[in-house]
Amino acid sequence: MAEARSGCPINLTLETLGDRWSLIVIRDIMFGNRRHFRTLLAGSMEGIASNVLADRLKRLVAAGLLTRRDDPSHRQKALYSLAEPAIRLVPLLVQMGAWGTRHAPAAPALSIRARLLEAGGPAMWDALMAELRHLHLGAPPPPRSVAAELRAAYEAEVAGGAGPVT
Amino acid sequence: MAEARSGCPINLTLETLGDRWSLIVIRDIMFGNRRHFRTLLAGSMEGIASNVLADRLKRLVAAGLLTRRDDPSHRQKALYSLAEPAIRLVPLLVQMGAWGTRHAPAAPALSIRARLLEAGGPAMWDALMAELRHLHLGAPPPPRSVAAELRAAYEAEVAGGAGPVT
Repeated sequence: MAEARSGCPINLTLETLGDRWSLIVIRDIMFGNRRHFRTLLAGSMEGIASNVLADRLKRLVAAGLLTRRDDPSHRQKALYSLAEPAIRLVPLLVQMGAWGTRHAPAAPALSIRARLLEAGGPAMWDALMAELRHLHLGAPPPPRSVAAELRAAYEAEVAGGAGPVT
Repeated sequence: MAEARSGCPINLTLETLGDRWSLIVIRDIMFGNRRHFRTLLAGSMEGIASNVLADRLKRLVAAGLLTRRDDPSHRQKALYSLAEPAIRLVPLLVQMGAWGTRHAPAAPALSIRARLLEAGGPAMWDALMAELRHLHLGAPPPPRSVAAELRAAYEAEVAGGAGPVT
């Protein structure tokens, strides 16, 4: 990070995260488990441009939010992992999702996970962070899989959107 | 807001808030109770430029996060108030402050309020939102003043920073 404009913790968080694309990339790695450049680019709901993605990945690695290593299963491919400071963004992303479901025209199918995470409170956020430490940092698997709970809720919502079976 | 890039609630929050200056302006109105262009400009820790401040105030009013009215006590001055969606950013700003105190070189005197707000949890955030509704929306005064608690903690920290009296 260049010379910070102030030592206020809110300002520093905003300066570290740089711009909104950085948080979008972290969101996709965190909730979509997309770990390679190609899947992050192809799967982007917001249509991130490849030069923007490359720049943000580089910046996030430099800032200590992501780590990058060669993927043993793919030659010439880099695998990105969340570092601990990025995992600690879970409560912030939960609040961003909660705000968006209330005060912006969020899509219902995409809001179900945000509402579930808000309602789950700190116990659920801690469980999700433990699961992310397993997936990204090699920590032991936790007893609870929040990712599976979110996936099931999302799939139920999408299925329900087709109308009730009569 | 222009056509949104996706209906994801996290993305919509980021698109609505636009860029980091928008949240800095909301922070200064919320925690510094700066309600006029001049005090927002002169008091800016980050040295916001006047054209950037003017642009962000206009955008935030258009997005329904702030309201602007003539200040009865000052001719030719506009008074800015937080609207309900901006007041509901309290939990998000708390999480931003909490992250910044842990993962960025935040100044100790500026971190005390962030730590207090994080530790206070949802009960304290609700009390702060009630107080902001009183200050900005004309709601009845709440029994608890979180602003006063934060101010006292900040002053104690600044006084303590001068070293113990021996």
